[in-house]
Amino acid sequence: MEAFSDGVFAVAITLLVFNLKVPDMSSGHLGRELGHQWPSYLAYVISFFSIGICWVNHHSILDRVAMADRELLFINLGLLLGIVSIPFTTSLGAVWYKDGNDGKLAVGIYCLNWVYVSLTYMVLIRHLMGHAHLSANATGVTLQSLQRKGFIGISAYAIATVLSLFLPVLAFLVCLILAMYYVFGVEDEVIREVA
Amino acid sequence: MEAFSDGVFAVAITLLVFNLKVPDMSSGHLGRELGHQWPSYLAYVISFFSIGICWVNHHSILDRVAMADRELLFINLGLLLGIVSIPFTTSLGAVWYKDGNDGKLAVGIYCLNWVYVSLTYMVLIRHLMGHAHLSANATGVTLQSLQRKGFIGISAYAIATVLSLFLPVLAFLVCLILAMYYVFGVEDEVIREVA
Amino acid sequence: MEAFSDGVFAVAITLLVFNLKVPDMSSGHLGRELGHQWPSYLAYVISFFSIGICWVNHHSILDRVAMADRELLFINLGLLLGIVSIPFTTSLGAVWYKDGNDGKLAVGIYCLNWVYVSLTYMVLIRHLMGHAHLSANATGVTLQSLQRKGFIGISAYAIATVLSLFLPVLAFLVCLILAMYYVFGVEDEVIREVA
Amino acid sequence: MEAFSDGVFAVAITLLVFNLKVPDMSSGHLGRELGHQWPSYLAYVISFFSIGICWVNHHSILDRVAMADRELLFINLGLLLGIVSIPFTTSLGAVWYKDGNDGKLAVGIYCLNWVYVSLTYMVLIRHLMGHAHLSANATGVTLQSLQRKGFIGISAYAIATVLSLFLPVLAFLVCLILAMYYVFGVEDEVIREVA
Repeated sequence: MEAFSDGVFAVAITLLVFNLKVPDMSSGHLGRELGHQWPSYLAYVISFFSIGICWVNHHSILDRVAMADRELLFINLGLLLGIVSIPFTTSLGAVWYKDGNDGKLAVGIYCLNWVYVSLTYMVLIRHLMGHAHLSANATGVTLQSLQRKGFIGISAYAIATVLSLFLPVLAFLVCLILAMYYVFGVEDEVIREVA
Repeated sequence: MEAFSDGVFAVAITLLVFNLKVPDMSSGHLGRELGHQWPSYLAYVISFFSIGICWVNHHSILDRVAMADRELLFINLGLLLGIVSIPFTTSLGAVWYKDGNDGKLAVGIYCLNWVYVSLTYMVLIRHLMGHAHLSANATGVTLQSLQRKGFIGISAYAIATVLSLFLPVLAFLVCLILAMYYVFGVEDEVIREVA
Repeated sequence: MEAFSDGVFAVAITLLVFNLKVPDMSSGHLGRELGHQWPSYLAYVISFFSIGICWVNHHSILDRVAMADRELLFINLGLLLGIVSIPFTTSLGAVWYKDGNDGKLAVGIYCLNWVYVSLTYMVLIRHLMGHAHLSANATGVTLQSLQRKGFIGISAYAIATVLSLFLPVLAFLVCLILAMYYVFGVEDEVIREVA
Repeated sequence: MEAFSDGVFAVAITLLVFNLKVPDMSSGHLGRELGHQWPSYLAYVISFFSIGICWVNHHSILDRVAMADRELLFINLGLLLGIVSIPFTTSLGAVWYKDGNDGKLAVGIYCLNWVYVSLTYMVLIRHLMGHAHLSANATGVTLQSLQRKGFIGISAYAIATVLSLFLPVLAFLVCLILAMYYVFGVEDEVIREVA
């Protein structure tokens, strides 16, 4: 399952580039057009680092699995479904974010996409903790630590979803801060294994 | 052949995201526009899980092959041709499904795409059974079990194709049920090897 | 170099699906519209099998390389440049093929793309034969056989290019026949290694 | 981190093909239309070889890393962000390059993208030199040589950025020459490891 998951993550993160549109030559001034696209650039960077970090954690967990079962397979596909949807919801949020109620809906959907990813990620960890499929290099302590961080993720993305109903831009920023938090807060032992 | 096949499956499943279109800002209400797109979302989820399950089975079979021959190579490329076409036929079905006779044609083509994939998959298994290319960890019992499931797949997709001539939406649902059946009905020993 | 090359081949072959366009709903009859697209389907199948076979041969050769040098690196990137261009020239040929002189130009460019790929492939083999970078499992006999097939490829694609100036559709058929020839004529020892 | 990085590089380099547009049939003469697109072809070739060479160096460095830490992870994602952006800035430069001040801006952004990639690449090397994470096959001499070449890269791309303010086409050519320099100037020991 791991090579396939790695491939899906790599393609999904690269497809984010389609959120950056080359302005049409008939649109007049390039500088102004590119300036208007700043939400797309911000959303691109946020989603890029979020997917990147998500991959690191996902890869690290799958590395610890000694034997898969039917439920794990299903949960993992469910998680990948969420990741593959990110380029779409990123574009949705970046294009519509400032359009009144529609903008709140669009950014809300983006945040909900991450709530969904965090949830399936959490389900994955819980499933592994409840069943003894782990290889020798997996300690209960590490899983509990991952679970704690996963819980922080769900909570933060849920707060971002609520915020998007009032201040869509602020919700984007919460997602950015969360990505940064994960980049600097990933467990040392996770990183060591991934490298 | 395996690394290449894995890559093709991963890219094809991720390209499904292009079936989700961000509504144009001139189109008015975002919520209503997204609501109209529900067939695209349903088709996206169905194709996602179907390709995912197909990959698990495919990967598991190739793992058992000790020596490839010319025909196996050809059959495998034929199977991948069907997988790569899925994003196109998925989009075709989702866009046209409710347009009278054209809708029946579109959903019928989608179902036929899966009939084709099931058929090449079956040909792959039969070829392996008829020729002694299998490695030690492959048992005749497992292959027979995979062949039985493959036969269920062809039958169900053939029924879905016939159904699409009368009730396109129902044909979609058969495909969804089939994907769920495979998710929950994959052989335990297959899963254990893939993990 | 091998994992990267495999990835490029897998993405390029999957991007061919973008040559299949879902007809717009305003275009009237779906069946008729799809019927008009038959050159796109034919070109899709030809390019799919051609890239697939090309990958098998390429992978098999790189497997035999024990030590790379600067020129090999350059030649390999040159070959990949040709492969990545195929989805573009395939689309060019399929869209324009029947438009008089423009059609001849379009199909001619498609055939020239394959001449270029065959040529870089030949240069790759010759470079390996002239320099002792091969690992133990590479025999001179196999390389000479690959070189002979490579020469057939260049010749056939050159003929197809000339044919495209008179009968573009016939040139397409030569490419199709060539792909079939390679599928059924790949060396047994090549296949055994790839599997 | 390596399989994921390889995947991102492979997808990004293949997405460059979307810079090549099939002219619409209503546009008249195919030959003239394709002729007008020459900047797109040039930019496509430049970016293709630049990403290819960048991958070789990147892969070679990651191969030498025995243990990753939090900063390395962050720096690597930052580098990949630059690579994934190349198809966009390539298209931007190729479409707008001759439009007066807008053309200078577009080509300048393309060159700045490469300055950014060179900078993160340099930061990656410096980080590895300052911290003892290297495996046994990494020598200080090789890293210093890579660092020297990285410095040449930053300088040349910075010069190209300044040139783009006066002669956008000349800036493109500097990028092309730089790619060629790297192809023919990559360390022998780097190539040997990658193969």
